[in-house]
Amino acid sequence: MNIVSILKLIRPAKVAHLATADSSLQPYITPVVFVIDKDKIFIPLDYKPKTVPIKQLKRVKNIQKNPKVAFQVDNYEDDWQRLWFILLMGYAELVEQKEVGGDQDKNIRKVHDLFIKKYIQYSKVEIGTIFIKISALRGFYWQYNT
Amino acid sequence: MNIVSILKLIRPAKVAHLATADSSLQPYITPVVFVIDKDKIFIPLDYKPKTVPIKQLKRVKNIQKNPKVAFQVDNYEDDWQRLWFILLMGYAELVEQKEVGGDQDKNIRKVHDLFIKKYIQYSKVEIGTIFIKISALRGFYWQYNT
Repeated sequence: MNIVSILKLIRPAKVAHLATADSSLQPYITPVVFVIDKDKIFIPLDYKPKTVPIKQLKRVKNIQKNPKVAFQVDNYEDDWQRLWFILLMGYAELVEQKEVGGDQDKNIRKVHDLFIKKYIQYSKVEIGTIFIKISALRGFYWQYNT
Repeated sequence: MNIVSILKLIRPAKVAHLATADSSLQPYITPVVFVIDKDKIFIPLDYKPKTVPIKQLKRVKNIQKNPKVAFQVDNYEDDWQRLWFILLMGYAELVEQKEVGGDQDKNIRKVHDLFIKKYIQYSKVEIGTIFIKISALRGFYWQYNT
């Protein structure tokens, strides 16, 4: 299954899991909300109260040293016949809404709007201006009945 | 929060996420079922049909080269006030039921029984004899309202 088909499948999911790894090979997982714009996945960095500054978050520090990430959407049910997951592997970078009016700014505004449309919670919660942007290189789909 | 308290909290959860990393720093995620015996987490390696031999599974190859793992249980709801997650970091190893009657065998039998008790699905699905055993070293609990 190609990346475009996989991205279409995961688009409606509300939550996903992001794995990063630090240079000592220690993996790290965070549950994340996300939107897809064209072939990129975007994850906000302040959809919830943070007790540490964004740049000090473990996932951010990991990505800055090691951009390789795994991104997963899955379905768990008591009926195991209906289990499935989608795993994407790729590279992450941080993108920030900086210059008002620039091309980069337009793209980020679009991402911002996609979040507001997908998550009604953002009518009350500030999204912020920094996002993790994932370029997926490979992906696969697994289901119980294969 | 200490590891014992965290393990108590995650015990009832039916599904968790396991992250491993290979030597190129590429992280990998798998949704997993699990049980807890004393201070260890056990994950079966054949609770679902596999198209590749167990030893060829990416998570198994990763663990054999790099035992560092992250293990996460989380709750996603539309009401973000109720979001929480628990993240554990530790070491993983493979354990196998080999000798009938030995001490190791008794421990694995207990794990086997814990799975049958926790997951009614195992009345129809074979559990197998190989498990990932995680020794958690550090953990933390996050909730939205902090």
